[in-house]
Amino acid sequence: MNKNISTFIGFDSEYEEADIVVFGSPFDGTTSFRPGTRFAPEAMRRDSYGLETYSPYQDKDLEDYKIYDGGDLDFPFGNPIKTLNIIEEYTKKVVNENKIPLMIGGEHLVSLPAIKAVYNKYSDLCIIHFDAHADLREDYLGEKLSHATVMRRVWDFVGDNKIFQFGIRSGEKEEFNWSKDHTTLNKFNLEGLDQVLEVIGDKPVYITIDLDILDPSIFPGTGTIEPGGVSFNELLRGITKLSKLNIVGADIVELSPHYDNSGTSTAVACKVLRELALVIK
Amino acid sequence: MNKNISTFIGFDSEYEEADIVVFGSPFDGTTSFRPGTRFAPEAMRRDSYGLETYSPYQDKDLEDYKIYDGGDLDFPFGNPIKTLNIIEEYTKKVVNENKIPLMIGGEHLVSLPAIKAVYNKYSDLCIIHFDAHADLREDYLGEKLSHATVMRRVWDFVGDNKIFQFGIRSGEKEEFNWSKDHTTLNKFNLEGLDQVLEVIGDKPVYITIDLDILDPSIFPGTGTIEPGGVSFNELLRGITKLSKLNIVGADIVELSPHYDNSGTSTAVACKVLRELALVIK
Amino acid sequence: MNKNISTFIGFDSEYEEADIVVFGSPFDGTTSFRPGTRFAPEAMRRDSYGLETYSPYQDKDLEDYKIYDGGDLDFPFGNPIKTLNIIEEYTKKVVNENKIPLMIGGEHLVSLPAIKAVYNKYSDLCIIHFDAHADLREDYLGEKLSHATVMRRVWDFVGDNKIFQFGIRSGEKEEFNWSKDHTTLNKFNLEGLDQVLEVIGDKPVYITIDLDILDPSIFPGTGTIEPGGVSFNELLRGITKLSKLNIVGADIVELSPHYDNSGTSTAVACKVLRELALVIK
Amino acid sequence: MNKNISTFIGFDSEYEEADIVVFGSPFDGTTSFRPGTRFAPEAMRRDSYGLETYSPYQDKDLEDYKIYDGGDLDFPFGNPIKTLNIIEEYTKKVVNENKIPLMIGGEHLVSLPAIKAVYNKYSDLCIIHFDAHADLREDYLGEKLSHATVMRRVWDFVGDNKIFQFGIRSGEKEEFNWSKDHTTLNKFNLEGLDQVLEVIGDKPVYITIDLDILDPSIFPGTGTIEPGGVSFNELLRGITKLSKLNIVGADIVELSPHYDNSGTSTAVACKVLRELALVIK
Amino acid sequence: MNKNISTFIGFDSEYEEADIVVFGSPFDGTTSFRPGTRFAPEAMRRDSYGLETYSPYQDKDLEDYKIYDGGDLDFPFGNPIKTLNIIEEYTKKVVNENKIPLMIGGEHLVSLPAIKAVYNKYSDLCIIHFDAHADLREDYLGEKLSHATVMRRVWDFVGDNKIFQFGIRSGEKEEFNWSKDHTTLNKFNLEGLDQVLEVIGDKPVYITIDLDILDPSIFPGTGTIEPGGVSFNELLRGITKLSKLNIVGADIVELSPHYDNSGTSTAVACKVLRELALVIK
Amino acid sequence: MNKNISTFIGFDSEYEEADIVVFGSPFDGTTSFRPGTRFAPEAMRRDSYGLETYSPYQDKDLEDYKIYDGGDLDFPFGNPIKTLNIIEEYTKKVVNENKIPLMIGGEHLVSLPAIKAVYNKYSDLCIIHFDAHADLREDYLGEKLSHATVMRRVWDFVGDNKIFQFGIRSGEKEEFNWSKDHTTLNKFNLEGLDQVLEVIGDKPVYITIDLDILDPSIFPGTGTIEPGGVSFNELLRGITKLSKLNIVGADIVELSPHYDNSGTSTAVACKVLRELALVIK
Repeated sequence: MNKNISTFIGFDSEYEEADIVVFGSPFDGTTSFRPGTRFAPEAMRRDSYGLETYSPYQDKDLEDYKIYDGGDLDFPFGNPIKTLNIIEEYTKKVVNENKIPLMIGGEHLVSLPAIKAVYNKYSDLCIIHFDAHADLREDYLGEKLSHATVMRRVWDFVGDNKIFQFGIRSGEKEEFNWSKDHTTLNKFNLEGLDQVLEVIGDKPVYITIDLDILDPSIFPGTGTIEPGGVSFNELLRGITKLSKLNIVGADIVELSPHYDNSGTSTAVACKVLRELALVIK
Repeated sequence: MNKNISTFIGFDSEYEEADIVVFGSPFDGTTSFRPGTRFAPEAMRRDSYGLETYSPYQDKDLEDYKIYDGGDLDFPFGNPIKTLNIIEEYTKKVVNENKIPLMIGGEHLVSLPAIKAVYNKYSDLCIIHFDAHADLREDYLGEKLSHATVMRRVWDFVGDNKIFQFGIRSGEKEEFNWSKDHTTLNKFNLEGLDQVLEVIGDKPVYITIDLDILDPSIFPGTGTIEPGGVSFNELLRGITKLSKLNIVGADIVELSPHYDNSGTSTAVACKVLRELALVIK
Repeated sequence: MNKNISTFIGFDSEYEEADIVVFGSPFDGTTSFRPGTRFAPEAMRRDSYGLETYSPYQDKDLEDYKIYDGGDLDFPFGNPIKTLNIIEEYTKKVVNENKIPLMIGGEHLVSLPAIKAVYNKYSDLCIIHFDAHADLREDYLGEKLSHATVMRRVWDFVGDNKIFQFGIRSGEKEEFNWSKDHTTLNKFNLEGLDQVLEVIGDKPVYITIDLDILDPSIFPGTGTIEPGGVSFNELLRGITKLSKLNIVGADIVELSPHYDNSGTSTAVACKVLRELALVIK
Repeated sequence: MNKNISTFIGFDSEYEEADIVVFGSPFDGTTSFRPGTRFAPEAMRRDSYGLETYSPYQDKDLEDYKIYDGGDLDFPFGNPIKTLNIIEEYTKKVVNENKIPLMIGGEHLVSLPAIKAVYNKYSDLCIIHFDAHADLREDYLGEKLSHATVMRRVWDFVGDNKIFQFGIRSGEKEEFNWSKDHTTLNKFNLEGLDQVLEVIGDKPVYITIDLDILDPSIFPGTGTIEPGGVSFNELLRGITKLSKLNIVGADIVELSPHYDNSGTSTAVACKVLRELALVIK
Repeated sequence: MNKNISTFIGFDSEYEEADIVVFGSPFDGTTSFRPGTRFAPEAMRRDSYGLETYSPYQDKDLEDYKIYDGGDLDFPFGNPIKTLNIIEEYTKKVVNENKIPLMIGGEHLVSLPAIKAVYNKYSDLCIIHFDAHADLREDYLGEKLSHATVMRRVWDFVGDNKIFQFGIRSGEKEEFNWSKDHTTLNKFNLEGLDQVLEVIGDKPVYITIDLDILDPSIFPGTGTIEPGGVSFNELLRGITKLSKLNIVGADIVELSPHYDNSGTSTAVACKVLRELALVIK
Repeated sequence: MNKNISTFIGFDSEYEEADIVVFGSPFDGTTSFRPGTRFAPEAMRRDSYGLETYSPYQDKDLEDYKIYDGGDLDFPFGNPIKTLNIIEEYTKKVVNENKIPLMIGGEHLVSLPAIKAVYNKYSDLCIIHFDAHADLREDYLGEKLSHATVMRRVWDFVGDNKIFQFGIRSGEKEEFNWSKDHTTLNKFNLEGLDQVLEVIGDKPVYITIDLDILDPSIFPGTGTIEPGGVSFNELLRGITKLSKLNIVGADIVELSPHYDNSGTSTAVACKVLRELALVIK
């Protein structure tokens, strides 16, 4: 008789033997429109039982890989700085033990400490960023740390030409202008992806997927709804192309499950997570 | 002063003169994830009043055809075997009176007795199967009769090369492997349909449409959500192509209306039913 | 680094040392109106984190008791008989190891095998039954095993004058008539409870709480809605009175969380479970 | 094989033999806040299958009475005057054939033509009016015909001391003042009901129940939410007291089912309709 | 300290200096299926704060234009004729002061008085009509003024060859036939738009966008759901092409926000309004 | 032609002449379970149009009082300390101009700076606290500033015997113990209120109403659901009793409108605000 264990389907490995370490960062403390991404990792674990472990897209099965699900980190409410430190510490431990972190957000700001911890090991780290929003503001209503500034904060340490952005269809005019000199920003869709994969080659890469890159027809359960995104199959094709890369860390963020009572958004997030996990290994 | 009659819009014929007999099979007793398809036929009758009887796609009008709506069958709760017998008996009567059964599910297992009854009249029956899931397991958690085994159970009597599957994007690896020798399985979409129509020619055909072949963006109201399906217009084009066939029975299954409060899924099911009825005659 | 464990809040004991064993029976296979009680135990574990472990009503704290949460039993879909056997086997093991079973349904039929297993140990077992419905039909649409027949099936083995029913406000006329000779049926509320507690004295008792005894104003998330039930505080007062009894088993059933998006029904079920656990010990 | 007939549960009589004639008036054309009462009669027929025909409150069974359900009247959209005429004509026919009309709204304005038709037969007609709102305005934003003026329009022909209002907890100050000379207005609850029953004696009575007399805890599915209403059991006790009266017509109005996804409000309306039908005969 | 002002984001101009005048017409009095478009303008103002003022599609920013938001008109409930007069008077004033009216519905009938007021100034007015429905009935259930007759009523005064319809996928057969001699009707999508733009040239144009031209996957929050519509990006491309035209008036209608709890439909309407405002100037 | 002004119904005064100043504090940054109280003030303004300005409970009309609605304060996301400063500054200005602040939260932490500003003017300030939760923790997961610590932080400056708590039914055992020496804590309901009113006499009082004191049957739209609260009418009676007091500030907090799609919770909050405003003057 063992206690009730709750993991994402097929993520059945023990920590010690795992190649990939999944964990949840249920934080939505700087969300500007509709909060609720804190509920994402748990909702995904629960609804993952509507998913098969086998992917007909990649002809791979989660059961053939060693993936550990460590549950959610515990955060203090109302203290973003402590929260980011907790994420950074956890990710550092994972990376230092030569495992690949695969984080489930939470809002997009949680990517900052995870990327920092990975960057500390891989100083030539490139970032592939799928998103509806540029997230390149210098500050947001005076705050430096925000879901709307996260890629700018990442740039603060990775510098120019390391961030590759896709699907961007919303932002201030200044963000689009600033990006011209500092990041590779592909508007609206994933069209420039093949070229970017060649540029990156075998450098270490962190993948950060803000699920609102998807059109809200298929992903309404998110904080800020931006019509005009990519379809699920377009995103899927983009993800499967990443298999050529040397992925050393990844996350998916911005599912807010309470805003989609049909469960579609959570099912989408689960399937993206399955395909992302399978593409890493 | 007559009692209140409730039929699907345009299905106004009396039984005796009808060419097509519509009936509901409100059963969801083996559903593994989210139950509720029992509510589908009644929800479709109700919301069909938002639909026109005229199809600009086929330039046909339901009012020009003789279609009878017999309401829902009555089932005992918790007894799948009796339920399947009731469906088989009803379908047998319809078929024996040279009418075409057009069933509204319910979960996909209800197709089994309906197909069996039709097969008993047409021993060279072919099956066109639109679905997200292969439904080819030998058993599901030990049970032989399940929505997840239904096409395997159909294969038990129709045998090899009679089942043509489209849109399949989910299943165990074993199901995909098994299909190679026994069915024609087209993954992800309807691309191989033209070719299959030629193969079938004028043989009698049963059409079974699991509506979850559609992407959940347009059809979230179903038991198991599988992102990555076909669009409504792709399905519509597929259905209109079927007009060349000798259709002797059909069903649409797996609408679970309570999971889509916007009413979109029910409206989709209604429009698919209209187009399917118009393509039969 | 340990795997993610998910238990109801405060049910932190290991099995071996536990006095009370909590487990979920996620079965809704004979539900006649709206299915979905299968989702109850998991929803309660998740939302129990909005609950305190301390009860100001009883001035007791869950942290001071030894309660083990074994998670949910695994059932085959579409096979009620196998399902009931699994529940009976599990309960038998718990009872035989001198622990008290506290089951979370599922529909009310799950109480039958649990009570049977407890009865096999305590042949003078009394049943306290809180419910909106009498559940005393001999059969339901021809089926002997049903949520609507469950107390009649219990009567089959415990016999006359062992079942004490409270809050009953719905049923066929025949059920009310039959009860006069076989059970103690209190209509509408808990008024006769004090007297019944005296009658029972120190005999072993099983408590079965169908949460639809509550008014749907406070508990809409259930299969069959019956306006006119008791308030939460009335039920709470009833439960706390049970502390005098020799409780040897208990369950709470019929939460269907998807029908109450506000989360109120799940919160109610959690608080009832906390108070019920505290009253047992 | 007969067409699918849809009636409220237990309303199984043919028109000719019926004592009570039930019909729906799905009109919400003057609703000021949230429209949607047009969906009420159909939703009630559908969900009535979660109800028993037997009432343990009155120890009566619908199956012992002759009640006919004529379905819904057909109205033109956007033309209140034609709509009211259609209701008046239908009610007149029912009354003239010595049957008792029992109407399901729609918004409260539908009571006006029904009461007028009944009044034309019974010139000493009294009105018992259960409601949260006084509905006594002379006009509403310039319109004489409105859900907010309906009892004032009824007063136009029945005159002083014929209207008995209960549960009123909302209105303009002028409405409360005006009522002092013209109607018997009981604020907040049903306390004065016994006295009114004596005053009325055996005069013919029309009962109009605006379901928003109920507290929104039990009846949120309505156009204008007014916290502070009576509980379901208080309303039930009030209704059962009406059995002494000579009821010659009745209605229940203002269920707006789409605003309560839990189904509670519709279940409440169904149970009120059952008790009201049983109290008439 | 100033009172709380609520305008659509970026519509910050004062009336006197404005080039475009935005106003809401919250009327849904002839809606035949699901009412609720009355809530659209207010919901759009509220949720517009999830939108940027900058459009990366047109590389324009609302902050660079002079747009005034006058709030919603006040209508009497239940009186369509008075309502249409109020809209016509307001639009006339706007047009006479050489500003461009941009109206937010409400149901489609509100376009009739707005177009009439604009036509009174521009007698060679052309109409571009995006919609799922032809709206060309001579009457609807006997009523001449209806959301289902609105373009026919417009034709009554603009005459043949002035109305250009796109995306039409639903109607009676008679509507499609009638259109052949009187309007330019493009079925299903926007394919014929380029050609129409050439035909119109620099004549004054009124744009009326019934948002149900969109597929319900992206726009479920509307009265009558018609699967098979255009995607958001297709509509967006169509709108941006209109920048060549001499637009003298415009509206967007038929958002019914309560039917889409995810907020997607309102977000879509907001983004369409932003792009439409930017294309006018 | 004036810009669209949005105020709570009946709060029509200009700032200069106002006696009461209403403002929204849309902050939910330390919410531990379900965020979303940020949406409360705007939802209340919008839905207040379903409310009458006249109260039959107090026989007073909002139109007879001078109340100004200043809209919502602007806060930076993710920075609780700056947020609290903004509230304190605004309240200080209101108090210094001899007006009474009436704040709409937001989560309960927003009461801290408002009470502090009022206390700075009235050093003998008493606090009447209606709530389900004691909010007396010294810290919450290490944070001193939290919705769960707010009354403890208030105690830090007002000291012993100044805080009078009612309706408390949830907390840690330590909170209940600590309260014995420092506050007057009435469990479960408002029973001790009359006595407290006498104790307070004519001292200046701040009223803080956490709406979750209400039972979730009538108020499900809140962050943490606690079954067993008071009814709407009980709360109403409590509020009307406060008219004897010298109220110098007040707030209502913890409405989270997105968790109650029926609109009941928002309607409740609106009516409580009307009664509270009327009781102040």
